[in-house]
Amino acid sequence: MSETTPDIPSKTLPTIAILGGTGKEGPGLALRWLAAGYSIIIGSRQLEKAQATAAELNARMNTDCALGLENSNAARQADICVLTVMAEAHQPALEGLKDALQGKILVDATARVDFRDPRPPSPPSAARIAQDILGPGVRVVAAFQNAPAHSLKKNLDKPIATDVLVCADDLEAAERVIELAKAGGMRAYYAGGLDNAVVVEGITSLLISINKHYGSKTATIHVAGLGITD
Amino acid sequence: MSETTPDIPSKTLPTIAILGGTGKEGPGLALRWLAAGYSIIIGSRQLEKAQATAAELNARMNTDCALGLENSNAARQADICVLTVMAEAHQPALEGLKDALQGKILVDATARVDFRDPRPPSPPSAARIAQDILGPGVRVVAAFQNAPAHSLKKNLDKPIATDVLVCADDLEAAERVIELAKAGGMRAYYAGGLDNAVVVEGITSLLISINKHYGSKTATIHVAGLGITD
Repeated sequence: MSETTPDIPSKTLPTIAILGGTGKEGPGLALRWLAAGYSIIIGSRQLEKAQATAAELNARMNTDCALGLENSNAARQADICVLTVMAEAHQPALEGLKDALQGKILVDATARVDFRDPRPPSPPSAARIAQDILGPGVRVVAAFQNAPAHSLKKNLDKPIATDVLVCADDLEAAERVIELAKAGGMRAYYAGGLDNAVVVEGITSLLISINKHYGSKTATIHVAGLGITD
Repeated sequence: MSETTPDIPSKTLPTIAILGGTGKEGPGLALRWLAAGYSIIIGSRQLEKAQATAAELNARMNTDCALGLENSNAARQADICVLTVMAEAHQPALEGLKDALQGKILVDATARVDFRDPRPPSPPSAARIAQDILGPGVRVVAAFQNAPAHSLKKNLDKPIATDVLVCADDLEAAERVIELAKAGGMRAYYAGGLDNAVVVEGITSLLISINKHYGSKTATIHVAGLGITD
């Protein structure tokens, strides 16, 4: 009888693939989403590295909800894919994953800023470049370019003091990513179309300069003045 | 005797010229600095407009510390000049003021963002363009690109809920502008060299998009995570 049916979730959470997910950023995001009950696929060009990272995540979280796969297989089995590769791997990764990503939401977390020479990038945004490579069958969303890897991995039950600026031409896709960011303990705001994402990439340049000047490692940007959550 | 010498200021405040100061932004900044005890010169291409704006400011503040002059004369008589012109007037104004600005600090508040089509600008930043036009005899500082005109003019005795990101290649000039922003009730942070200022211009694009999406007019960006004033 329906009164006694136990623990059926009210809705099924999407499966998230983190492509290039063995670096600094990917595992941090994965931990956050595992803590929130999502199933995670760690993607890498090398299956063994993906499996090793997934095993570490499962061990830390005492779960089996992280799986390691080669990037293309990871993309095919996920609902939402998050790309966390180094700037120089951005275009080749997208070209190689174009087929596997059709029909998906692709979250591009790339900030094309060199830590040693942090000049701001020029338009078009990395996310616009991704959309142009992937074509209209993929809904590209730019987000998490400034998410601090060190903070993501700590205090998983607490919110992170960083705001995620989400840029997308497809508002429904943006809203799904805002939901995902919030599930991971981050405040998130829609900040315009894919072209605006170049500014969010460039905020990385500002934060590097601010941290250097003030002897900090944790400078971040908050959205305020909306009178909704601040 | 020195004990009875009245009201000698501990230091003389610099005179501030606001070039193109008859628009929306300039009078707001002027009011803030008049309230903090600075002498202000409003500059305009048309002397009569400058004089009219200065008279309005003096009337509101019950002072005679605002003076209206043609832009070149305003620049020559000031210690620090703040350029608040429309994006399309930026280069011609700088070319016309090159001689008058030699030896000064020029604060460039230009954000090359069209409110109706708010795409982010490309590098180089407006401030870098200004430095290239003016040459090494002028110390260019980028600041106040996102300062909300409507908030500047209200509650002059209270801080403004906006953070000023100050970009300059000359750190001593940046520090003088940070001091000026703080005198006007704004929190201000050094955010790197002149090239970084293109990102601060682009933040205007983000704020326009955020305001539009959330039905607000007052979105702003705060710097956090430094553990100093936040």
